[in-house]
Amino acid sequence: MTARSEHPAVVAVLGAGSWGTAFAKIAADSGARRGTDVRLWARRPEVAQDINGRHRNTQYLKDTVLPENLRASTDLAEVLTGADLVVLAVPAQSLRAQLRDVAGLIPDDAVVVSLMKGLERGTDARMSQVIAEELGMPADRIAVVSGPNLAMEIARQEPTASVVACTDLDTAGWIAEACTAPYFRPYTNTDVVGTEIGGIVKNVIALAVGICDGKKMGDNTKASVMTRGLAETTRLALALGGSAETMSGLAGMGDLIATCSSPLSRNHTAGTLLAQGLSLNEVNASMTQTAEGIKSAQAVLDRATQLGVYMPITENVVAVLQGAISVDELGPRLLARELKSEGVSAQ
Amino acid sequence: MTARSEHPAVVAVLGAGSWGTAFAKIAADSGARRGTDVRLWARRPEVAQDINGRHRNTQYLKDTVLPENLRASTDLAEVLTGADLVVLAVPAQSLRAQLRDVAGLIPDDAVVVSLMKGLERGTDARMSQVIAEELGMPADRIAVVSGPNLAMEIARQEPTASVVACTDLDTAGWIAEACTAPYFRPYTNTDVVGTEIGGIVKNVIALAVGICDGKKMGDNTKASVMTRGLAETTRLALALGGSAETMSGLAGMGDLIATCSSPLSRNHTAGTLLAQGLSLNEVNASMTQTAEGIKSAQAVLDRATQLGVYMPITENVVAVLQGAISVDELGPRLLARELKSEGVSAQ
Repeated sequence: MTARSEHPAVVAVLGAGSWGTAFAKIAADSGARRGTDVRLWARRPEVAQDINGRHRNTQYLKDTVLPENLRASTDLAEVLTGADLVVLAVPAQSLRAQLRDVAGLIPDDAVVVSLMKGLERGTDARMSQVIAEELGMPADRIAVVSGPNLAMEIARQEPTASVVACTDLDTAGWIAEACTAPYFRPYTNTDVVGTEIGGIVKNVIALAVGICDGKKMGDNTKASVMTRGLAETTRLALALGGSAETMSGLAGMGDLIATCSSPLSRNHTAGTLLAQGLSLNEVNASMTQTAEGIKSAQAVLDRATQLGVYMPITENVVAVLQGAISVDELGPRLLARELKSEGVSAQ
Repeated sequence: MTARSEHPAVVAVLGAGSWGTAFAKIAADSGARRGTDVRLWARRPEVAQDINGRHRNTQYLKDTVLPENLRASTDLAEVLTGADLVVLAVPAQSLRAQLRDVAGLIPDDAVVVSLMKGLERGTDARMSQVIAEELGMPADRIAVVSGPNLAMEIARQEPTASVVACTDLDTAGWIAEACTAPYFRPYTNTDVVGTEIGGIVKNVIALAVGICDGKKMGDNTKASVMTRGLAETTRLALALGGSAETMSGLAGMGDLIATCSSPLSRNHTAGTLLAQGLSLNEVNASMTQTAEGIKSAQAVLDRATQLGVYMPITENVVAVLQGAISVDELGPRLLARELKSEGVSAQ
């Protein structure tokens, strides 16, 4: 690890959606006493104006008042100059193009954190892999933050725990210090792969649970789908080198439950709308932010197929998204298995 | 395993509460084509009359129509004579006394299944241990059924999966065949300890989540409490010889999520009422059926203390039940931990 100051002086957050803005608020609240500057890059001028003029990001976080030491800009150079912590919260599918625009602007010793939850279509790469490839950075300066982190609840300062994962535990600890607030408590972990996979696949499982909800199925069914969903997520994570312990923790089980339980979850909502008979295009058109599970599901299945990992829930969600089966056929398929012994290999 | 017929001809269910009655319905639906008789023992004559006269158990399962081959009686001998499968669904704390009454009535080769979820106060014994002690039966004829099994949803025939655990997998499979219905799908497992511990401790965790709900805490917080709750449950199960895989399955994670998510769960409801300021006596008085977590919490903590297992959520729930801390103090305590690495040992 390179030598770095005890705390970041400048935190740059790229992406002013709900999670990017909520995380910028955490970093600003965390660093307020230390004089930390938090700079948030917004693509749209009206969002930057809302944040700078009214200390709000009304579209994504309603009436949450943002801290004084959080400022927004549409100018990437202005946001990134001098940043020692760079947080990426742009749509997963546009990350690579975005990084090509900013590669020369990120200071040499900066630590880069991904808040994104998706696999890149075409390459099936995780976000931390895209970052490493495009920025040519070593793994000990790339981290991910993931957990049961519904952005709107964090904006309302409801108590939340999370995971900062980096192959270098010192780097993870440094980031954790920089994003600790009375309402936000990060734990550290060295399992980047498991932490990312948990955050990616849970969106696919949340689509399935959303469809169950839309079809008025009960809590017994939904709990079973979540349980088997985590089992198939764990199989994929293990095949990629992640750990089972991560999947039983906040970035695995915790994130899955929060996403599948909350009406605030986009993926859960998208599933509910599909169940109500909307087409995929209608669902996409009706939502202000991406339901990432819709975009990543096929990439997850591709990765699983390459590795010989059995992921029946993901497989059936992909079939629904492709129109190969109807939402009415999904429910019975999720539970339709022969009598057999339960277990990771059998589920 | 002793030789036994392919399917039970007579199933006796002791206890006509919601879960006992719902399970009797499953067994009756499962065995209808084979001419299986299902006999349900009810303590109160009016419940038996409701079942026999109107094919309903109105108090517990509202307007669910029960199958023709399910009959009720208040006479233990009548219910147990000739039974080859005996299912116990009486209150956990009265099981031992009940078994002393029926020991001589249970046929020699019968298989006994526990649906009960609790530790016996005073002895801290699991229900399968009480059964083995009182009936002097070998482990290969004692089983437990547990999973995400809200009785009211099963009564409504909503798709449900479950776990039948017995040290003898043939016995577990035999029971599973006898309780398979289009809406109820049992898996088998040899981990009786883990399956029981999952069902017991989830009631304690559901009290904590119910208190969070009553205090209007968000899904991030509740998901974290469930995640850490399962971690402490897993530590206890491992210390008692159970397996981590069971805890990640339907009888661990699945049952926990269903119980913590559903307004139908008694333990969740009891927690909500406590959070609203009701005293423990008022909560108990307001509920028609036992919230088993209230009774088992101390026994769980005793067992953990004896084994040196760290169970902070259980510890704090016990403190609330004893009046040592208020419900307002519980929330912050559930998340108040220093920054540290996440993991089973650290959580």
